[in-house]
Amino acid sequence: MKPSPALEYHQRPGRPGKTAIQVTKPCSTAAELSLAYTPGVAEPVRAIAANPQEAALYTNRSNLVGVVSNGSAVLGLGNQGALASKPVMEGKAVLFKRFADVDVFDIELNTSDPEEIIRTVELMEPTFGGINLEDIKAPECFYIEQELKRRCSIPIFHDDQHGTAIITAAGIINALQLTGRSFAGTRVVVNGAGAAAVACSDILLSLGITSGNLLMLDSKGVLHTGREDLNAIKQRFARETPARTLADALTDADVFVGVSVAGVLTTDMLNSMAASPIVFAMANPDPEITYPAAKAARSDVVMATGRSDYPNQINNVLGFPFIFRGALDVQASAISEGMKLAAAHALAELAREPVPAEVAAAYDGQEFRYGPEYLVPKPFDPRVMEWVSTAVARAATEEGIARVPMHDWDAYRDSLRKLSRQLR
Amino acid sequence: MKPSPALEYHQRPGRPGKTAIQVTKPCSTAAELSLAYTPGVAEPVRAIAANPQEAALYTNRSNLVGVVSNGSAVLGLGNQGALASKPVMEGKAVLFKRFADVDVFDIELNTSDPEEIIRTVELMEPTFGGINLEDIKAPECFYIEQELKRRCSIPIFHDDQHGTAIITAAGIINALQLTGRSFAGTRVVVNGAGAAAVACSDILLSLGITSGNLLMLDSKGVLHTGREDLNAIKQRFARETPARTLADALTDADVFVGVSVAGVLTTDMLNSMAASPIVFAMANPDPEITYPAAKAARSDVVMATGRSDYPNQINNVLGFPFIFRGALDVQASAISEGMKLAAAHALAELAREPVPAEVAAAYDGQEFRYGPEYLVPKPFDPRVMEWVSTAVARAATEEGIARVPMHDWDAYRDSLRKLSRQLR
Repeated sequence: MKPSPALEYHQRPGRPGKTAIQVTKPCSTAAELSLAYTPGVAEPVRAIAANPQEAALYTNRSNLVGVVSNGSAVLGLGNQGALASKPVMEGKAVLFKRFADVDVFDIELNTSDPEEIIRTVELMEPTFGGINLEDIKAPECFYIEQELKRRCSIPIFHDDQHGTAIITAAGIINALQLTGRSFAGTRVVVNGAGAAAVACSDILLSLGITSGNLLMLDSKGVLHTGREDLNAIKQRFARETPARTLADALTDADVFVGVSVAGVLTTDMLNSMAASPIVFAMANPDPEITYPAAKAARSDVVMATGRSDYPNQINNVLGFPFIFRGALDVQASAISEGMKLAAAHALAELAREPVPAEVAAAYDGQEFRYGPEYLVPKPFDPRVMEWVSTAVARAATEEGIARVPMHDWDAYRDSLRKLSRQLR
Repeated sequence: MKPSPALEYHQRPGRPGKTAIQVTKPCSTAAELSLAYTPGVAEPVRAIAANPQEAALYTNRSNLVGVVSNGSAVLGLGNQGALASKPVMEGKAVLFKRFADVDVFDIELNTSDPEEIIRTVELMEPTFGGINLEDIKAPECFYIEQELKRRCSIPIFHDDQHGTAIITAAGIINALQLTGRSFAGTRVVVNGAGAAAVACSDILLSLGITSGNLLMLDSKGVLHTGREDLNAIKQRFARETPARTLADALTDADVFVGVSVAGVLTTDMLNSMAASPIVFAMANPDPEITYPAAKAARSDVVMATGRSDYPNQINNVLGFPFIFRGALDVQASAISEGMKLAAAHALAELAREPVPAEVAAAYDGQEFRYGPEYLVPKPFDPRVMEWVSTAVARAATEEGIARVPMHDWDAYRDSLRKLSRQLR
């Protein structure tokens, strides 16, 4: 049997997988090797021992992110184990490199113990300029990220939570604006209570959705104060409400945020929502309601999904490469809430800009213009790095968590534009 | 002040350090990215979950070595800490890639606790096809390596021990042959009791030096049965002997193996050794006795050092890249004693071969011919990979520890010759 295109792509005889090491300095001659290794290498060793900041000058660390997983929640496939998660983590490395020239070591850890993951990453802090946690299941992922943020002085970012949340927030900022809503008066229903659902809810609350206007549901229904089966994370989102089912919750709601399973949003429920309802149906690969079904039921729906074949794809690749690019470029000690919000606002603002012809060219000549069918930039829009990385680096600098604060923003934007061209 | 050439080399604005990631598969278009990442990547995930061996087909793992250190014994500089060891580990990555096309993630661990190093590496087993431990101080390094060999099913190799030992063994095999000695009758003095000294002693005992004919010294003198200050490792080498000092031990000795400090071997001691004494003075950067001083004292000395500016440099780069190349190519589950001995014999045999003109060309036209001034091949000899990797892969196959046993050795040698040409 002929292998599938995906297996064939990964296999390619002689070079399995998708990443390899490249040596970035000349190393052909004995003289060059005596700089790269002994005896010359003793000099940067001594320099870094004397001043740890100089590691950013003499090693790969300042451009290096560890993508760390234990494979406990791989894509939509559940717990596949550390080894089987490797193609995904390598794929993440490909996206980091392709979109933002960030180098990644994919690190797969054979443990389900949160304490072991935390300690392992903490021990590796000298290796990396930042850590992207990936495909680690909830609720452990919350504790792991929180502890690592406390213990480490480099950015720690669980992309399944915050990547999704940031792009979702960007889309919802624009959807509210287009439908004439304010954050304060908007009622949101979040279906799902996993990593992404919690992070989406948190960022929406940061943006101004009021606590009483946000209902979350897990597989058993609405999180309400009468439930006694809720862990500490879910308890944060339990509300005093008579609503028990998704149908109850959605009646007259303004926004549906789905990070759950295919097909749970019925046309009846959609019809019960407020005028110009906002539906972010992000279950993968099949959303909570399909774009055609939603549009057929209500022409006034403003709709986003996780799919590339309909408008408004909520795609994490709009976030993580550029967020780390910005954080690394100022040697930020963390990725703060402010940096995440800055990234969301930058994406929302970029979507309101006229779209250059080169973006259309990358999408078979499709024209894009700000509106209900174009809430967020397209992944292949070469301007995304310039907008997002600048916003993130600036937020880090303003918050005082940049080890190398930046001041000449025009020069930085120029350098990002140049890098973006090189990466195409 | 102008930075030194070594610091300038490591710095190079815009690209600090020496390694980066390269993406090995096409990833320009949305279609290609849908193979590298979602949704296509789910296929290799499922394939590996069903059959872990398929990780070698679909990921970078089968060509990937972790170079792991805690920086507790960096070069000759002592404990520099994990962060400051990074230039050395990256340098090792450069050598692995440059000489044998092996990809390396350098992993620096911020701990001095052997149990933490062991557990961390064990957890990372899904990430790597092999582990090269580096610059971890003795005696912890022995326990760490031993435990990891027990717990992991991938090659674990502490290069400071075995790399040095293998090249030393190759040189001594030939030095004994050239001076008409047998292993059984040869008296050896090993000065030093650290990682390399212990491994050199062990491999010489494996080769046929008798236990009673090998004396080891630490900084306090000869390890003898009357000493009560010896740890378990050193106790293995304690002998019943009246010798107490290096001078005592060397009287009438055949071989001096120095992995200690500069200048400790005096000309008086050298003069007290047997006819045609064999002196491997490998302290770095300054040997236990210099080549000119030794030659001036005794023209019959057969001499090797760690230096590139005198004959017979004992350089680890003759070993580790090719040993891992061979081990990875048959997916060996370990690097066994047999594989190490096979590497040593291969190097010794290659040194007895006529040396092609291209080697002379790489060394300013110097001619090399088997003899006391040419005991081991030169690092830039393009034949080394073919000889060493083949010997290692064959030993693994014969011992039954190759997951993918090899049978067509001519084809393998051809492929290594081709690779060697590509790497030049």
